[in-house]
Amino acid sequence: MFKFLLTFLPLLSGSALAASSGETAGLLLGLFWVVLAATLCGALASRLGMPAVVGQVLAGLLIGPGALGLVQADDFLLSLAELGAVFLLFMVGLETRFRDLLAVGKEAVLVALLGIILPLGLGLGFGLWQNLGTVSALFVGTALVATSVGITAKVLQELGVMDARFAQVILGAAVIDDILGLTLLAVVSGLGTGQSMGAAQVGLILGLSLGFVALVLTVGLPLIRRFESRLRSLSVSRMFNVAVVTGLGVAALSTVAGLAPIIGAFLAGMVLAEVKDELEFESKVQALEAFLAPIFFVVVGLQVDLSVLTSAAVVLAGGALTLLAVAGKVLGGLLGARSLGQEALLVGTGMVPRGEVGLIVASLGLAAGIIEGPVYAQVLLMVLLTTVLAPLALRVLVRRTAVGSVS
Amino acid sequence: MFKFLLTFLPLLSGSALAASSGETAGLLLGLFWVVLAATLCGALASRLGMPAVVGQVLAGLLIGPGALGLVQADDFLLSLAELGAVFLLFMVGLETRFRDLLAVGKEAVLVALLGIILPLGLGLGFGLWQNLGTVSALFVGTALVATSVGITAKVLQELGVMDARFAQVILGAAVIDDILGLTLLAVVSGLGTGQSMGAAQVGLILGLSLGFVALVLTVGLPLIRRFESRLRSLSVSRMFNVAVVTGLGVAALSTVAGLAPIIGAFLAGMVLAEVKDELEFESKVQALEAFLAPIFFVVVGLQVDLSVLTSAAVVLAGGALTLLAVAGKVLGGLLGARSLGQEALLVGTGMVPRGEVGLIVASLGLAAGIIEGPVYAQVLLMVLLTTVLAPLALRVLVRRTAVGSVS
Repeated sequence: MFKFLLTFLPLLSGSALAASSGETAGLLLGLFWVVLAATLCGALASRLGMPAVVGQVLAGLLIGPGALGLVQADDFLLSLAELGAVFLLFMVGLETRFRDLLAVGKEAVLVALLGIILPLGLGLGFGLWQNLGTVSALFVGTALVATSVGITAKVLQELGVMDARFAQVILGAAVIDDILGLTLLAVVSGLGTGQSMGAAQVGLILGLSLGFVALVLTVGLPLIRRFESRLRSLSVSRMFNVAVVTGLGVAALSTVAGLAPIIGAFLAGMVLAEVKDELEFESKVQALEAFLAPIFFVVVGLQVDLSVLTSAAVVLAGGALTLLAVAGKVLGGLLGARSLGQEALLVGTGMVPRGEVGLIVASLGLAAGIIEGPVYAQVLLMVLLTTVLAPLALRVLVRRTAVGSVS
Repeated sequence: MFKFLLTFLPLLSGSALAASSGETAGLLLGLFWVVLAATLCGALASRLGMPAVVGQVLAGLLIGPGALGLVQADDFLLSLAELGAVFLLFMVGLETRFRDLLAVGKEAVLVALLGIILPLGLGLGFGLWQNLGTVSALFVGTALVATSVGITAKVLQELGVMDARFAQVILGAAVIDDILGLTLLAVVSGLGTGQSMGAAQVGLILGLSLGFVALVLTVGLPLIRRFESRLRSLSVSRMFNVAVVTGLGVAALSTVAGLAPIIGAFLAGMVLAEVKDELEFESKVQALEAFLAPIFFVVVGLQVDLSVLTSAAVVLAGGALTLLAVAGKVLGGLLGARSLGQEALLVGTGMVPRGEVGLIVASLGLAAGIIEGPVYAQVLLMVLLTTVLAPLALRVLVRRTAVGSVS
């Protein structure tokens, strides 16, 4: 212990400590840097009139291996970030009424479908133009399909426009996007590793995902109303427990159904939203989310290793890919949500951030050998730019647009 | 993904999923079981008139590898549990006034010293009587020295007697216990691995720990008063951020100084307690603690593998060791806190639970080859019995005793 102290006392880096015997020290120090950076950069961004999320993602870049090197995204931080995303979407679900979502159902489906087809086509074309193989080009398209609802949802929360019509369209479209996007990823990854899927298999994956969403809503909504009076007899802290257990449980189950856990968390939140006005557990969930969600945003930044942007060619191609990524989603929003008038542009912009979903897709492709270093770097740049710039644009656009509410 | 679904759909076990490719699913499902078990068993314990902590530790035993096998204590749960202990002690610190602690300083020092010397001597004697070598016997003594302040603090919180004089003595003694106990552990572990420490080295470890505590208090307390008005101008959510960053930072730093992170968290909480009446962030910290602390208690239970209790001889010897473990701390409390009259028994009882500290010491000794299987099993039984029975006894005793407050 003595030697350990002498060696590491001056070296207050979370990663260095974690690698040594001081496991706990490293974990806590890493978490400390993350929370500190999130607080400072989030506050700075707010002061500069930017969404706090942008500051937090950039905070991750700043303290990460590419810059200050104080922290790296170890297993604990990645898991905690995942939990942060789960609680973020759980909270978003708590602020969403199912009937408001249903009211914009048609638009959400259209936006989701167009927001998949257009980016997929654009990415595929871009990949073929770059002389990639068909499967690799398809994979680039798949990376363009990803949408990070967490980033957008947080910006909408901050702006206080969560119950606006366009916000509901974004949420609904994001859920559908996730279902179709994960199915697409399974198919394309399968192609990449030489296992092509039959239509029956694809149908089963899709059916399982859709069935799960339907099940949670058709069983959950009547059930929660039925038990409302019983829930009301619980103390606030016990109701908080019930809420957290429900959120975690449905999130975990949704991964079993092939969905992202955030979708399950969102659905669980939406079910509980039916009774939350009568029950006062929301502020406690909000405190949890306030601690965990910034960790999620910082870790998104931590995972972007800018050192892969080695050449001007990569940066140029990545920039072009970014334009296509923006065009695909914005067009999808404009066309799909035409009925919303000028709010359609908000929908399109809200679908732009690729965030952690884009990172996951890119890393999967790299690990499976479907895409290679330079293409990975282009996708990374696209993820970073869409994640940072879209919230800025969305904020400006929301401020300029007269926004209508659903109900 | 398809094959994965078919294989694991019926097998909703966190550990099975974590071992497979569904990392996230496994993590969330494991956490779901932990939080569910904590909620149900905690509520059941409360209904039976027992402290919720006891239900939560037993919940860990129930869902752990020894019984239902739904979850195992993986790295994520262990880290989250550590974080739970940190927030628990941070919250305890927030409920503690430094001047109240100082008011019982003499008693706390006496209780801590006697609570180390007596169990160490009893454990050493027990080990020698069992024909262990001197170093192994010393190590058994060291395992008896450990005190888990988290378990007791939670029981005191639940009973609403945190500001009673005896509670303050326990908290003060626990801090001193941790400083001396960790130094002792370093010395004895060093002996076990053949590196004996000089007096200068021991002095440096002790000095560093004590110096850190003194530094945090002498710098922190004036500093917080000085910035009080500035802190008051922050929004509640920003003040929450400042509090969390402070707690995590001091906790991480305290590990660098050779202390347990919970001690740093406690000190940070106590510093912030000076201004908390003016600032309304406490309920948010409390929500975080309400989520994380039960995870800590369940994980303590998860780590107790009852299957090591293979023979009647082990159970018998473990039972005897438990009696010595109780006797050492109760005597230490009775003698050290004599001035508190009948509350001295409460102090002694409050020092009894060995909890996670006992587990850590035992595992360290086993890993370093200082103690062997059967002795490890005896220590494990001692840890379990003191952790579960002391809260029950404390609750009964507190209810029967007219408890005096410090201020």
